[in-house]
Amino acid sequence: MHIEQVEKMCGGFGQVTIKHLLEEEQMKDKCGLYAEVTINPGCSLGFHEHHGESETYYILKGEGVYSDNGELRRVKAGDVTFTPSGSGHALANVGSEPLVFMALIIRG
Amino acid sequence: MHIEQVEKMCGGFGQVTIKHLLEEEQMKDKCGLYAEVTINPGCSLGFHEHHGESETYYILKGEGVYSDNGELRRVKAGDVTFTPSGSGHALANVGSEPLVFMALIIRG
Repeated sequence: MHIEQVEKMCGGFGQVTIKHLLEEEQMKDKCGLYAEVTINPGCSLGFHEHHGESETYYILKGEGVYSDNGELRRVKAGDVTFTPSGSGHALANVGSEPLVFMALIIRG
Repeated sequence: MHIEQVEKMCGGFGQVTIKHLLEEEQMKDKCGLYAEVTINPGCSLGFHEHHGESETYYILKGEGVYSDNGELRRVKAGDVTFTPSGSGHALANVGSEPLVFMALIIRG
């Protein structure tokens, strides 16, 4: 487990904190990322596409606005998002508390 | 997303609730399970081994006793467990609140 802090991630605002739960060798090239991610109020993770892999977000805490391949919707704890290969997404914290979610990238 | 309730899971006590976040076709045979699991106070998930796959638990809420291939340790929110192929694990809720965790099975 290691923690990474990324500024202006994918062209977003502010800082994103990524708590990596698995190391690469544990994922056996089946998954590309398994992490708990925190976006502070006013910060965001910019729009980006996935190719040859999908990414799932599972919201644990906070309130966000999610771009599902460009289409915006509100997300909150308990919500699941899924970006298949060839699509893109982004997520902004629009609340007053940290926005915390699980991120899982699956190859294929 | 669908919810499953399992009695005496893997020989454990009481009931375990599994909120499946991804369906099989979304996991492309790279992962076997991606779920938020809840074990109520006094309930447990019995000991079981994994072969040809690993399983990671990430504890979100509550307090438990985890069997790491037989060795016991306490787990709480923020803890990560990893069971490689060929090893086994179990988890019991020993607190007064629900024990909630993420479960991810990766093939290979």
